[in-house]
Parts: sequence; structure tokens; C-alpha cells
Amino acid sequence: MNAARPFDDIRALLLQMPGPDEEAAAAAKAREAELTKPAGSLGRLEAIAAFLAGWQGSDRPHVNNPLVAVFAGNHGVVAQGVSPFPQSVTQAMVANFTAGGAAINQICKTFDLSLKVYELALEHPTGDITREPAMDERNCAGTIAFGMEALASEPDLLVLGEMGIGNTTAAAAIYHALYGGAAEDWVGRGTGVDDAGLTRKAEAVRAAVALHKDHLADPLDVLARLGGREIAAMAGAILAARLRRTPVVLDGFVVCAAAAILQALDKTALDHCLAGHVSAERAHREALSRLGKAPILDLGMRLGEGSGAALAVGVIKAAVACHNGMATFAEAGVAGKE
Amino acid sequence: MNAARPFDDIRALLLQMPGPDEEAAAAAKAREAELTKPAGSLGRLEAIAAFLAGWQGSDRPHVNNPLVAVFAGNHGVVAQGVSPFPQSVTQAMVANFTAGGAAINQICKTFDLSLKVYELALEHPTGDITREPAMDERNCAGTIAFGMEALASEPDLLVLGEMGIGNTTAAAAIYHALYGGAAEDWVGRGTGVDDAGLTRKAEAVRAAVALHKDHLADPLDVLARLGGREIAAMAGAILAARLRRTPVVLDGFVVCAAAAILQALDKTALDHCLAGHVSAERAHREALSRLGKAPILDLGMRLGEGSGAALAVGVIKAAVACHNGMATFAEAGVAGKE
Repeated sequence: MNAARPFDDIRALLLQMPGPDEEAAAAAKAREAELTKPAGSLGRLEAIAAFLAGWQGSDRPHVNNPLVAVFAGNHGVVAQGVSPFPQSVTQAMVANFTAGGAAINQICKTFDLSLKVYELALEHPTGDITREPAMDERNCAGTIAFGMEALASEPDLLVLGEMGIGNTTAAAAIYHALYGGAAEDWVGRGTGVDDAGLTRKAEAVRAAVALHKDHLADPLDVLARLGGREIAAMAGAILAARLRRTPVVLDGFVVCAAAAILQALDKTALDHCLAGHVSAERAHREALSRLGKAPILDLGMRLGEGSGAALAVGVIKAAVACHNGMATFAEAGVAGKE
Repeated sequence: MNAARPFDDIRALLLQMPGPDEEAAAAAKAREAELTKPAGSLGRLEAIAAFLAGWQGSDRPHVNNPLVAVFAGNHGVVAQGVSPFPQSVTQAMVANFTAGGAAINQICKTFDLSLKVYELALEHPTGDITREPAMDERNCAGTIAFGMEALASEPDLLVLGEMGIGNTTAAAAIYHALYGGAAEDWVGRGTGVDDAGLTRKAEAVRAAVALHKDHLADPLDVLARLGGREIAAMAGAILAARLRRTPVVLDGFVVCAAAAILQALDKTALDHCLAGHVSAERAHREALSRLGKAPILDLGMRLGEGSGAALAVGVIKAAVACHNGMATFAEAGVAGKE
């Protein structure tokens, strides 16, 4: 008998993922057809309402208790000169979130979203992935489990965000390991590196994947070796949301790297997820394409913090409000098509 | 001396259009650079904030008193079988707006927007444009002036919407007259005509433009002969907003036809306008391209009522909230780029 390994619990949970409530989704679609508008005229809003109905198991979907969960981590790979900002900015931005001064705070206020920030041992950056694994298996599994706690307050919609100087490099390494191509295909300017910085990022990603190449067959090992604590925690949050059938809104390049790990483990693992936006980080569009997700918004944002996903909640709230609040043709006495 | 003509007042107003407050826009951009985020990372949101700052003449733009103005009109061209819905639906939907049962009501509630509905002599449809002018010059000028009243409550952001069975045919005729091409290039399925209906729409547009071809050199004549009351009123509202430097959010295919008339009169006439969305009505993307406007949203909507534009106000509110509410690097003690 093999000894229990830290990832065993995660693998067990992946086997328990429920699907959507197809009856509720069908009931929502039936209602949609009765509402006072030409069939299909609300476009993506109709699809969003039906999507939420299926996952929430109700023909009247709701966004009454939405949570934006922002995970923050630090990365040893910043030693490779991959970011124009010092590592101290991660902690400083966490303080800014707490004080209410960041972009995500304003977006949450605009759409009445709760915000929780999860600090992940910021004083202990992960290993420099060009020289060693980011995390060992035990640490990675524990962090995934920690991320699952984001569901403790039972939100009816989970929005994921992150903060971590250096984390677009970790995310690029994950994509490169999962999807191949060249390191250059997956790196971008992140918070705004110059050309020399971009070259250093590509070099770091190439070096990291080369160093760990014999241990990247399992997506959970990709996460542990190349990822970061916030990425592992977000993977846990996405999985935990699925187990509760809670719909999730993905944010940008880094959040989608966490999602990509789960999808690589099980191709249905993201069926409960919407892509909030496509960011200006160069490879995000390709990443979304690999995930099979069409973004709700395309506004050239590249901030992280869950900002693009939280902004998409405005659209999601409107979709739900239309679905639940509109009169039917019969109620309003409006004639249908002749 | 020539006798005064009804359009003379409109032409005089077009000569009085103010530009934006460049100092306020520059001050907003300067503030934006100090906020706790990488420069440019809020993408389109930053541009929206600076745009509003310029037109509102304040480095702290605001959406405190937004108004969604929905204009409703009826169209004689429905006699040509261009819509699958009976003309009575225009009046019935106005009643639905008043009762709070339409999509636009729910979107307004979601984003706390005021809604006003302007009924334009629904019992007297405009002339069938395939046989006669939609309106005479006096009626058109009066309707433009009526539309200007939408600014009476001094909104700080004006969102335009419309309702009118048959009005995508009128809008297509306007585009065809202004931009040329074939009638087929400008017609689409509107509320959902079948293939035969689409053929009838193209035929109606072709017939209308052929009938009036000797009187289409002046965009105001295009409006009177091919347009509709709600389209004329929206042109008035856009112009009145400009005179007060009030930013405007355009909605879909029909609203943009009103805007196109003004732009054809003066190529700067839409400088205070944002395109809220690109609709699924086939030619709207091309119309936006002619107007030089990049849509904020692209969600496959094609409902009218101002629904796409009102939805975009969610993004605009978030842009303003970020601009005004975020801490600066100095305030938050966050280090900048190294």
C-alpha cells in the first residue's frame, strides 16, 4: 500500500465535481422566452442568466451575496529582474486594499460586492522557480486547501483576484509547461516591464521549465514547481466553488493560470466558470482560448486584483435583474411576433 | 432676404458647439498617473474618466444624475412588412416601460439610473418612406427641438434609447443615404425578421432612397425624409447635450443613425459621445466605424430601449469611482516603479 501523499485529497475532490442543474437551466431558458423582448435580443445576458440558473439550481438566479476573494503571494523569481516594482509592493497593496484605496475597492463599492483579501505568507516568498520548486508538494496542497476556505461565507457568486509582484512570470511558466510553444509566447509586460525586462521574463520562464522538465507531467506538480501561493489558493477556491456549485468569475492572466491547472486535471473542471474579461497582458487571449472561455469584457485592463472580473459582475447583475424583473408578454399585455 | 426656414435654428446651434475643457482633461490624466496602479493598467476605464473630465469640466468626473432618455415613435414604413411585430407593440412597450417591466427598467435599477420615456405622437405614424417623406421639415425641426428638452433636468450623463416598431428600417435608410453602398449592406434582422422579411426591408430601403434621391444632399433632409420622430428627437438630445457639454452614451443601430445625421452636418458633432456597445444588428459595427467610435461593450445585444448603453454606464460608473476614490502612491505609501 502506498503512503498517502499530500495531493491525494485534491485528486479525490476532483472526482466529486457535480454538474449543473439542467432542469433549472431549462426552466430559466423557458422563462427567458416569455419575457417582453424579441427572443435572443439580450444576447450574452441571456446566456449568463441561464448559466447562473444551472449552477445555482434555481430558475431565478441571484447575485445577493457576491464575494471578491483576492489572494496575495510573493515570488522568489523576482530575483531574476522580472518586475519593475519591488517585492514590497505586494504587502503595500494589501494594506491599500484594507484601507480601501485600490481600484478593486472602488469597483466593489460601485457594484456592492464584498471583498476579502487573503495574505499568503508574504514574508516568505516562494522559491525562485529558475533554481528550485516554488513550493513543495505539502506546502502546495496546504495552500490549495487554504484557498478552499474562500467559500466559507457561502457566496452565491465568487470573483477571483490576485496580487503578487512577479506572478505574471509564474503564470507564464505554468502556461508554457501546460501548453508548450516558446517561452516568449507566454510572457508579457505585466505591470509594465521594459524590453530588457521582457527578455529577462522570457529567459526566466524558459529556465524554469527547463529546470523542472522531468517533473511536469502532472498539472499539480506544475502548480507546485512553477506557480505561487496565490495561484495554488485560487485553484483551491475554484475547486471548492465547484463542489458547492457556486459560479465563479475568472479575472486575468494569473487567475486563469490557476484555472488552467484544474482544466488540465479534468477538462470539465471549469464548467462553472465565466471569464470576466480579456486583459491586455499579451497571452491572455490565447490562454482564454485554451480554456474555451469567451470573455464578457474587453477593455484593455491589466491590473489584476480581480478588477476585470469584478467589473463584469455589473453585467452579470444586470443579466440577473433582467431575467428576474422583466414582465412576460402575458403579464404586460404586449403582442408577440405576428 | 430669404424667409426663415424651420432648420435654420438647428443650423445656428451647430455653429455654437463647445469643445471639451482640455485643462480639466489634462488634470484628470495627471491624477490618473498618481493612482496606486501601474500606469495605463485600467485601460479603457482611464480613457473614460479623462473623457468625462473634459466634457464635465472637472478633474473629478461624476455620474451623480445620469438620465436614460428613451424616445418612442411609430413608422409608416411598417406597411411594407418590415417587422414581425405589429405597430401596436410600440405603445404597449411604452406602457411596459412605465410599469417597470422592460429590460431597460431592470438595468436602470441595477445601476441607479433615472429613466424618462418620451412618446412621440404614437397614434400618428410618420409617412411611409417608400411613398412619401417621413416628416415635413417643420415637423422634423419641431421634433428635434422637443428632443432637446431631455436636457431640462440637467443630467450629468445622458444615455439615449429608443423604441419604435419599424425603426431599424428607417435607420438603415439613413445610413444608406449618408454612406452609400447597397441597401442590403445596411439592413439586418432587427427584432427578428425572417429571410423574406429581410428581403422586404432591403427593398423598402432601396425604394425609399430612390424615391427621395434628389433631396438627400442635406443631412437634415435625410432625417426628415427617411427618419422617424424618435430619431429626430435623439438628434436634438445629442445636440442639446453638446451645448451643455454633457457627455452622451449612444446605444445601438437606431440611436447611432440619429448621431450619424449630426456627424454628417459637422464631423466634430459627436466628440462628446461614447458608444455604449456594438449590437448584434448586422450593420451596427460598420456604422460605429463610420462614426469613429469604439464600443465599450460587445455582448450580442439587439434590444434597443437604451439597454446596451445603460449597461455600459456600469463600466462608466466604475471608471469614475476608480478615478476619484483610489489612493495615490504617496497617500498609500506604495513604492512606484524602480
